Amino acid sequence: MIGEIIAIGDELTSGRILNLTSNFAAYHLFAMGHEIVAMATIGDSPEFIGQALKKALARADFIIVTGGLGPTTDDLTTAAVAKVLERPVTFHPEIQAQIKHYLASHPKPDGITAGIDLNKLAWLPRGAEVLKPAGNMAGYVLIHTEKPIFFLPGVPQEMQELLKDCVLPRLRRWPGRAHRQVKQRLYRIFGLPETEVNQRVRHLEGDNSLVRLGYYPVFPEVHLSLTALGATDEESSSLFQIFDRRIKEALGDYIYGFGDETMAVKVGELAIQKKVKLAIAESCTGGLISHTITTVPGSSNYFLGGIVSYSNQLKMDALGVEPETLARYGAVSAETAMAMAHGIKKISGADITVAATGVAGPAGGSGEKPVGTVYFGLATPDNCRHYLHHFSGSRTMIQAIASQTALDILRKNLMEFQ
Amino acid sequence: MIGEIIAIGDELTSGRILNLTSNFAAYHLFAMGHEIVAMATIGDSPEFIGQALKKALARADFIIVTGGLGPTTDDLTTAAVAKVLERPVTFHPEIQAQIKHYLASHPKPDGITAGIDLNKLAWLPRGAEVLKPAGNMAGYVLIHTEKPIFFLPGVPQEMQELLKDCVLPRLRRWPGRAHRQVKQRLYRIFGLPETEVNQRVRHLEGDNSLVRLGYYPVFPEVHLSLTALGATDEESSSLFQIFDRRIKEALGDYIYGFGDETMAVKVGELAIQKKVKLAIAESCTGGLISHTITTVPGSSNYFLGGIVSYSNQLKMDALGVEPETLARYGAVSAETAMAMAHGIKKISGADITVAATGVAGPAGGSGEKPVGTVYFGLATPDNCRHYLHHFSGSRTMIQAIASQTALDILRKNLMEFQ
Repeated sequence: MIGEIIAIGDELTSGRILNLTSNFAAYHLFAMGHEIVAMATIGDSPEFIGQALKKALARADFIIVTGGLGPTTDDLTTAAVAKVLERPVTFHPEIQAQIKHYLASHPKPDGITAGIDLNKLAWLPRGAEVLKPAGNMAGYVLIHTEKPIFFLPGVPQEMQELLKDCVLPRLRRWPGRAHRQVKQRLYRIFGLPETEVNQRVRHLEGDNSLVRLGYYPVFPEVHLSLTALGATDEESSSLFQIFDRRIKEALGDYIYGFGDETMAVKVGELAIQKKVKLAIAESCTGGLISHTITTVPGSSNYFLGGIVSYSNQLKMDALGVEPETLARYGAVSAETAMAMAHGIKKISGADITVAATGVAGPAGGSGEKPVGTVYFGLATPDNCRHYLHHFSGSRTMIQAIASQTALDILRKNLMEFQ
Repeated sequence: MIGEIIAIGDELTSGRILNLTSNFAAYHLFAMGHEIVAMATIGDSPEFIGQALKKALARADFIIVTGGLGPTTDDLTTAAVAKVLERPVTFHPEIQAQIKHYLASHPKPDGITAGIDLNKLAWLPRGAEVLKPAGNMAGYVLIHTEKPIFFLPGVPQEMQELLKDCVLPRLRRWPGRAHRQVKQRLYRIFGLPETEVNQRVRHLEGDNSLVRLGYYPVFPEVHLSLTALGATDEESSSLFQIFDRRIKEALGDYIYGFGDETMAVKVGELAIQKKVKLAIAESCTGGLISHTITTVPGSSNYFLGGIVSYSNQLKMDALGVEPETLARYGAVSAETAMAMAHGIKKISGADITVAATGVAGPAGGSGEKPVGTVYFGLATPDNCRHYLHHFSGSRTMIQAIASQTALDILRKNLMEFQ
């Protein structure tokens, strides 16, 4: 189906807030096989809201409108819709009852709702159907000239929940549309540039409408989505299995996870599974590797800690790197990286440790060790080894990709760990 | 003036790329006193590009179009414009010469431009004027029915450079527009919620069109912009000075910096100015404080390093926290925070150190120390003190706000440091 997305709010047209909801909707609708021909962002003006709706109705099969559903005076979507579609607002006592119930259990102590009439939320354009009657969120659907128009809140979390739980399933079942069974997977890839990912799987792309591949560079990773759109559950499953296998063959263990699994989540799962404790020593990444590991709830079960040895003195005093190692090979060297990994292993008592030392730039590079040179050390119960990478980009980019590389080294070694 | 923004590209309507350029343009145009009534995002379809342009011409005084200016077959903006505005493309030999010159000095080794005709870039709609003739960027302006239409690349960096250097100055000088001298400042505020910032300065807002205030929550900070739009340089300067002084009075040292100055930049400037070395000990933030400090180029001049003592054992072994302190007061306590600050000071030789220990959640909270409880320790050459904060939000949010609070503690103490 062909869709349009309309986002409403002065906070968007004044640049005060970045519009995240339209992108989220487009991403999921595209993956489902829909085509979005236009996305509009409109200020809080009933006239322009009306114009945008009329235009979208003329060329799309469905419309998603976000924002402007709240109780304050600048929330004008419902009034604009009632006018332009000639569907006067009608009162929904069940919504009012729910608001009362909500307010009774969620008192707002400091007058946040003072002067604001929440009953406004109980008035919807004629024919509107509340999307999630049990949820405490605005959001309704209106069928106009046989086309569904979905009205969702502008708050990203609420909008995303309603889109996934209510909008996408309804579109999937929409009559007149060839019945499709959607099977999807998002592959998270690290260590290959987007062009290389593309080269490896593009023979799987095609003009057929049964399978869709999407590429999403999310620095420093690349995400790839597979959508199988068969007529039956069986057909979709077969297609999905064939393409899933081919993608995995083409990308091997550059695929580190699926869906919402971050690299840190994956490392954590492996550490728990293999019953090992981890620790980190880092220099050029400044604490980013440790921090990324601790973004995972429960990481204290396998992460003991880290040392950010930015100065050479701290490399010696806190990690026990020998002065001779630093003098002979330099702070950015395989020898220092391994000594750091060894040092943090000793002081923390961890089973596996990774160390990173390099030149994040913009200054500090040399002919022999240019900006972007990063050495990694890995210490396991059995041995100590090193890896050398050359990254490019800004200081921020080099720190981010070096941190992710350190985690990837951990991941690959944990997978083989007995 | 009233403006519209049109962003072009299938990568936007499929949700593959988040549209950052429209928000950037809206933010800067709003701050300059312009009003954006609508922003459109259109796929690579000449028909829809033409429709969007015609509609915008009918209701706006100026238009900004981004994307679709490149050399590949799906870059269709120029062709669509030539058709809908009836301005056939004409050849610009100076652009072709520049492309040749650029290619000669930037050889592309592995056939990136193979099969792509860069000469396409030398053909522009009749009447187009190149925005930055000396730069290696696509981008032109067309005056149609006395309204300027700016065509900018979709690449955010290039688009932002051209907007700031070419588009905003031209709009400022646009004939028929009341001549305005713009004076602007962005205030970066930490430690006050947006509602409180608003309450403190809203008496400075007004219906007059000479001064504009804008609020931009950028978690965990709030940014406030002041724009003075006088008729003369003198008038703007006077207005700017009056409102600038009032804003500073209202917000005091909750304003930590201006413009592009981040908290880490500010801390670094103060450390250099006061000739002190810094080091960090952290637990719940997992390395984020250290990493944030090292995002600043040259931070190795004042940052010695840090210890991420996630486990209690590492708090004892690496930082020298006494087992009795941990046993008696717990890992999340004022005493442990101070012992950590003291420990990292001793081992690193830094002059000033900060430590953070708390409950980032979602698990680990207790009645006495709920999720969001964070103790900070500060060690200076003279003494050691502590701070207690209660934050709310997700694990990620608590880590981010705790890290920023630690830097703010450093900043405030560095300001007073003799």
